[in-house]
Amino acid sequence: MAKKPILQLALDYVEMAPALAMAQLVGKEVEAIEIGTPLTKAAGMLAVRTVRHLCPNNIILADVKTPDVGGLEAKICFDAGANWMTVLGAAPLATVRLAYEEAENRDGHEMFIELTGVRDIMARASEWRDIGVERMVYHRGWDEGNTSRIWGADDLDTIGQLIEMGFQVSVAGGLGLDMVRFFKDVDISVLVIGRAIREAADPIAEAKKFSEEINKYWG
Amino acid sequence: MAKKPILQLALDYVEMAPALAMAQLVGKEVEAIEIGTPLTKAAGMLAVRTVRHLCPNNIILADVKTPDVGGLEAKICFDAGANWMTVLGAAPLATVRLAYEEAENRDGHEMFIELTGVRDIMARASEWRDIGVERMVYHRGWDEGNTSRIWGADDLDTIGQLIEMGFQVSVAGGLGLDMVRFFKDVDISVLVIGRAIREAADPIAEAKKFSEEINKYWG
Repeated sequence: MAKKPILQLALDYVEMAPALAMAQLVGKEVEAIEIGTPLTKAAGMLAVRTVRHLCPNNIILADVKTPDVGGLEAKICFDAGANWMTVLGAAPLATVRLAYEEAENRDGHEMFIELTGVRDIMARASEWRDIGVERMVYHRGWDEGNTSRIWGADDLDTIGQLIEMGFQVSVAGGLGLDMVRFFKDVDISVLVIGRAIREAADPIAEAKKFSEEINKYWG
Repeated sequence: MAKKPILQLALDYVEMAPALAMAQLVGKEVEAIEIGTPLTKAAGMLAVRTVRHLCPNNIILADVKTPDVGGLEAKICFDAGANWMTVLGAAPLATVRLAYEEAENRDGHEMFIELTGVRDIMARASEWRDIGVERMVYHRGWDEGNTSRIWGADDLDTIGQLIEMGFQVSVAGGLGLDMVRFFKDVDISVLVIGRAIREAADPIAEAKKFSEEINKYWG
């Protein structure tokens, strides 16, 4: 039996107020909280720092999708209270390495490769593994999702190959409650849920349903 | 005679205080001010908004290097007072299009493609031109620069080809006073200077020297 994936709530907002309210409301129902990329730019590390104070027991991911200056961006995320941060898959390998080293130098901190926009995932993946990277966000981006992409068998194949290479894989992008089962045969590490919880009539109840669904397949 | 390139100061800081002090000090000596990528994450749009108030007459570039959610990231930059914003070259085309449309819908606002990490520039460039994109930052990234890349004849060739395709090209990355002349035979639109001005003993005097050097070759 595979290890149960972590449930992560994505705070995809561009204002602090609704993001903090949602973190406060749902924080106890999820293990990890993600500060979404636009919020890291709208409010900066103040968003990370404030969620850290509101939710002292959660894992916090700063989804900065670093494209360059990897060591410095990892440092500002971790200094603000994030446990995890993301580097863009399209970033130069030097950037990946510098962010990875910054994470390795701290206990309990990790950097993730984020796959938004990467066209040649498998070719790049071995370069990242050579550096030592162990975590990855397999992400169906917003803008892509708004046009044509949907989750399919090819995604499961790729995720399976990445796990075999030694990656712990987070999955993210437009996932609803009915999609939890989709991943039941792959050993995903983190299930990232955004709108399906945030825009539910009762976000607490909805987060509980996601946990129950996860327990059903990985219990 | 080619049009004289704009002199742009890059505020590559991770704290508001030194960034604002430098903007206040050198703002009148440069035409454009860039809020560097790490600062857009450290301080968020508060950095853009504050520089807008300190420097009401400058062009402001928010170098957010958007990887996804293009329309929304362009909106938050422009709403905060930026005239210009950047989208990562590795972003999906849908992201480029959404940011471009957000800029087109506003007078005096533009989006730039930022080339950090892009391996197949010329192949992608025609896709961007098809969308309508007119501006581009030809960028030698920090982490790449710290290892091996230096500016060379191949860069000038590529910049020349991009200009022929119809792009207005900004050049950025490790440029000192002695490098202004390097670009004299290509019709670059913006010359981005960072450390060479910020870390000078007298940043005002140094910015004036850059303007004089620009006048020498494009005067």
